[in-house]
Amino acid sequence: MALPNLIDGRAIAELVHAETARRVEALKLRGVVPGLAFVRVGEDPASKVYVGMKEKTSVRLGISSTTHVLPETTSETELLALIDRLNRSAECHGILVQAPLPAHIQSARVFASVIPTKDVDGFHPVNVGKLMLADPTGFVPCTPGGVLELLIRSKVNTQGAEVVVLGRGDIVGKPMTSILCQKSQHANATVTLCHSRSRNVSEHCRRADVIIAAMGVPLFVKAEMVKPGAVVIDVGVNRVPDVGSKDGTKLVGDVDFAGVQPVAGLITPNPGGVGPMTIAMLMRNTVRAAEMFVGG
Amino acid sequence: MALPNLIDGRAIAELVHAETARRVEALKLRGVVPGLAFVRVGEDPASKVYVGMKEKTSVRLGISSTTHVLPETTSETELLALIDRLNRSAECHGILVQAPLPAHIQSARVFASVIPTKDVDGFHPVNVGKLMLADPTGFVPCTPGGVLELLIRSKVNTQGAEVVVLGRGDIVGKPMTSILCQKSQHANATVTLCHSRSRNVSEHCRRADVIIAAMGVPLFVKAEMVKPGAVVIDVGVNRVPDVGSKDGTKLVGDVDFAGVQPVAGLITPNPGGVGPMTIAMLMRNTVRAAEMFVGG
Repeated sequence: MALPNLIDGRAIAELVHAETARRVEALKLRGVVPGLAFVRVGEDPASKVYVGMKEKTSVRLGISSTTHVLPETTSETELLALIDRLNRSAECHGILVQAPLPAHIQSARVFASVIPTKDVDGFHPVNVGKLMLADPTGFVPCTPGGVLELLIRSKVNTQGAEVVVLGRGDIVGKPMTSILCQKSQHANATVTLCHSRSRNVSEHCRRADVIIAAMGVPLFVKAEMVKPGAVVIDVGVNRVPDVGSKDGTKLVGDVDFAGVQPVAGLITPNPGGVGPMTIAMLMRNTVRAAEMFVGG
Repeated sequence: MALPNLIDGRAIAELVHAETARRVEALKLRGVVPGLAFVRVGEDPASKVYVGMKEKTSVRLGISSTTHVLPETTSETELLALIDRLNRSAECHGILVQAPLPAHIQSARVFASVIPTKDVDGFHPVNVGKLMLADPTGFVPCTPGGVLELLIRSKVNTQGAEVVVLGRGDIVGKPMTSILCQKSQHANATVTLCHSRSRNVSEHCRRADVIIAAMGVPLFVKAEMVKPGAVVIDVGVNRVPDVGSKDGTKLVGDVDFAGVQPVAGLITPNPGGVGPMTIAMLMRNTVRAAEMFVGG
């Protein structure tokens, strides 16, 4: 039986995909095929899975994708040279460098080398700044952008709401805060950003109308930390031991779903919540990059 | 009688100035005079006062300052042309465009036209992004940077502290949040950003270890909103009617100082608190820009 308070990320992602596919068609009528380049360094199994899923979705939506796989031993200079070629390529409108990069490469320097107009991940400092300044010419990073889209399409009113963001990562927690504090129709929330050094995290959570969990601590958010009726968004992806499974591990989120679901007003499953939205936002950002490239 | 819980912004600014003056001397020994260009458009009386104070301090510290005053009717194109010349000038290491600009000029475009390496105000999107990403190569905006310096030199421990920032402006509230949420020795706070659409602002304030008031509402923070012993920083500059004064107005902060001072653990006077620190940070940023220009 489907639970009545589930936010179905897969279904919402399909709605976004349908809109994106229409924009791809419109671009093709103007003679432009949106192009997305994936750059993957090394053979990290999770990175292979993520890039594979994104490639598959690109193809399905009519976006032309190219994947560049470099060996683990690639130097930073070689990687930057590839990004430079992609920055100048007229067929490539979006560039995604899959994290994590090998330890000998300075990730921040690499992400900042992607030209901001092709930075569909929204990681470049200028796009991070534009998000904070509510400048709509930048790219919104895919995961927090996907969370916002889930909230909007689930008709969650964030105006004046108490939002607690758990985790201050550059990819989710910080930009999520930048998004939801803005003076705009789908934001205007009072945001508290909690992290590993926060005291009273449970108390913060208990007064929250919306909890966004992105700290990377398995099953951290328990029922007793959630105000009845609160909206709970689980961004966590944590690999934990699981004796019953093939490889001895399984993925769990930052939310104890079984315990929290009966208390929450709305809750994302995990998987099937935020994950599909991250990909949907990547595709939408890529099409937007192509639209900006052709103008209009 | 001096109050024992006052944070003396003027005295702390002088300590910073002394350090900056030594760095100016060191640069001069290397043959470089740090240069700061002020750009002022129109005859806004407050802007004239602010630029005048900054010029005076520059001179005192041995920084070479040039002020460009353009008429109120200046076009955006003319203003951008001046900034372009300053961006390329070898004598100019820092550029400050005094806000507010006339209504017919798009301020965001003008601030973003200052080359990031001379953006000593820290308003350029790339510097806003670097602040959020804790990238030390950017410039920290002067007012929130000055508040941080006040907290550090007053030995306020922000580790795990509850900080409530009132006001989500691009110049103070938002960057203040970016600064204090970071994983670093002088940050690591749990920050809640409140604004005009927040509910329960008083409750948020009452649980705060540190309140930073930058909303621009005269005397908003009252004694009953402050937890005994909390640190209260008043960034507000509000002009209100005052029948007794020469021009019929006076400046007041966002904090009801008379009421709050007996409750607070530490409190900034206003004037004499944050204001002098803003200028001190501008001077320090300018010297840093000159140091980066010469390398090392």
